[in-house]
Amino acid sequence: MGMKVEQVLHMVGGAGETSYATNSRVQEKAIFEAKPIVEEALREVYKTALPESMVVADLGCSSGPNTFHVVFEAIDIVDDQSRRLGRPPPEILFFLNDLPGNDFNSIFQSLEGYEVKLKEEKQERIPPFYVVGVPGSFYGRLFPSRSVHFFHSSFCLMWLSRVPPGVESNIGIPLNKENIYISETSSPAVVESYQEQYQRDFTTFLQSRFQELGFGGRMVLSFLGRTSKYAPSGELSQLWGLLAEALNAMVLEGILQKEKVDAFNLPFYAPSMEEVRAVIQSVGLFDLDRVEIFKSNWDPFDDSSDDRIYDNIISGENVAKSIRAVIEPVIARSFGEQILDNLFSRYAKNVARHLLEEKTKHHVFVIALKIKV
Amino acid sequence: MGMKVEQVLHMVGGAGETSYATNSRVQEKAIFEAKPIVEEALREVYKTALPESMVVADLGCSSGPNTFHVVFEAIDIVDDQSRRLGRPPPEILFFLNDLPGNDFNSIFQSLEGYEVKLKEEKQERIPPFYVVGVPGSFYGRLFPSRSVHFFHSSFCLMWLSRVPPGVESNIGIPLNKENIYISETSSPAVVESYQEQYQRDFTTFLQSRFQELGFGGRMVLSFLGRTSKYAPSGELSQLWGLLAEALNAMVLEGILQKEKVDAFNLPFYAPSMEEVRAVIQSVGLFDLDRVEIFKSNWDPFDDSSDDRIYDNIISGENVAKSIRAVIEPVIARSFGEQILDNLFSRYAKNVARHLLEEKTKHHVFVIALKIKV
Repeated sequence: MGMKVEQVLHMVGGAGETSYATNSRVQEKAIFEAKPIVEEALREVYKTALPESMVVADLGCSSGPNTFHVVFEAIDIVDDQSRRLGRPPPEILFFLNDLPGNDFNSIFQSLEGYEVKLKEEKQERIPPFYVVGVPGSFYGRLFPSRSVHFFHSSFCLMWLSRVPPGVESNIGIPLNKENIYISETSSPAVVESYQEQYQRDFTTFLQSRFQELGFGGRMVLSFLGRTSKYAPSGELSQLWGLLAEALNAMVLEGILQKEKVDAFNLPFYAPSMEEVRAVIQSVGLFDLDRVEIFKSNWDPFDDSSDDRIYDNIISGENVAKSIRAVIEPVIARSFGEQILDNLFSRYAKNVARHLLEEKTKHHVFVIALKIKV
Repeated sequence: MGMKVEQVLHMVGGAGETSYATNSRVQEKAIFEAKPIVEEALREVYKTALPESMVVADLGCSSGPNTFHVVFEAIDIVDDQSRRLGRPPPEILFFLNDLPGNDFNSIFQSLEGYEVKLKEEKQERIPPFYVVGVPGSFYGRLFPSRSVHFFHSSFCLMWLSRVPPGVESNIGIPLNKENIYISETSSPAVVESYQEQYQRDFTTFLQSRFQELGFGGRMVLSFLGRTSKYAPSGELSQLWGLLAEALNAMVLEGILQKEKVDAFNLPFYAPSMEEVRAVIQSVGLFDLDRVEIFKSNWDPFDDSSDDRIYDNIISGENVAKSIRAVIEPVIARSFGEQILDNLFSRYAKNVARHLLEEKTKHHVFVIALKIKV
């Protein structure tokens, strides 16, 4: 505990081999799947508000090609929609948000290259657009009131604002030993603490965005969820369980201190769709416009839809790389940089073994929300 | 030539000994001197527009304590003015702009610390504010139309968008050899090219800001100028002349190639107030509301107003450090990192020698502009 998520949680910066920018194919696929839903929502927002200047915010933009996918997709859609309605294309202001530890320098320095490419591709006039960076947690206010038309967030909302307090007792004794997320061996109190934290965080998120959205405002949110009713039996419990297994093995070999691993837990929660709906309903500010659930193989490079595993060793390595790009800073902060290679090579093997038993898939939830009228 | 200013020109990042953050006292003093002018302009903007949500942009914010001085000053003034007028304090959105090479990560990561300090200092409710980063050259559009209430720019507008093309002949032969800025030995054609570049850049600046400012919008701009009528006899010609001297000495000693030094010129121009007024008048979009010229000793740590030099050696070193924090990336790009210590230690000595002859001062121009009605 004591870890402040806002300072530690961020994707691996730069563009190197272990960077998020080169290991974000799961997220890329989710953006692709959500595209029609984003498109519909953006068209509706534009039609309702008919703004001369449109404001789009991406929450948890990270740094890498995905960041710009969303920007350019939005430019295309808004441009097209304005033409259909016979209006001059609006200017578009993009707010790219992420936690302060995100590599904004890298986004800003690659922006010009993407702009040049976009202009070449389109071979035509692009509506004027402006890209700015917004550091801060989306579990709180980020923008002035009624200043945003459309919010997008991809693959971020399963990260909580903090590790739930219930993972330790009142006097600081770890209660979720050997686990790093909820599992079948977690106590009901620990599971409940995770669930409460999720409800509190998602509530704050919805309330904050409601303040920030203007007339006709909409959001499209995609995140990892689970299809099992019982929280600790979801696919994410398996995914993180295999990482916990690697950490515990390193404890047995004397590489890591048992106290550290016992005290370590992820600020993460994969909700069921029922839990998502329950929070939206209890907040009462948004209507749920669309709901989709996509399956996505754990191995980001396996695009097959059958249950066959082609090469479990390679798939294990691919999964380990994609997970490492996301949680390396969190792991390094708690256990030191020097254990990273060792840990993730064990993790790759554990995942490979697991995939032989079952070709597990992520469940990506995509929901479209609009402000209640 | 061939150097793209937008990619190279930026202050030294981080918070180390040679960083801009720790070597920006000249700029800090300018902000202090300009404070009453900024205050008056902000009060007027607020009174005219009475926005529920106010947008303030700092152009060329760099990274360091000065960045936040401006933000917190603006919060104070706007908060106070709204109370005086018996209105609820507006939300304030700050756009912090600089070139993409600026260390935005460092700004974003230090923001929270400054916010905590501000809240402690004020011991009272602070109006809600939001800080975002905007990468790009202010010699062009940065924001949607009519989206900003107030522009501030401190110590940036003397940097041009590029090295003026007239420093070399049509076939690429250097015409301003041994100089890195205009000097008494520069040809009239070179001087004219610098002046034309300044006029073009400042014109673009004013036209862009006019588009971006809303009703009642104002700007306060401070930058280095010169009081001499003849451009090559200004104090900046002396300041850069002493750096050119160091570069030329290193050529004689075989440390630097003569061709490289001959081809090197700074994208910089210190205008006279007449030149500033002429551009504003020819653009015709703004009224010049206030004009002030402040003197500031070259040595940022010498706050005396007399003509005595206390320790010319130390002053020379102070000047060299403050200049290095600003132009190190430009120098390193052309001549390599390895020459930096050598060059700036020579420069410190040259400045020390010069200060014995004359305690030269910067002339800081502060102008307040408002949109013509």
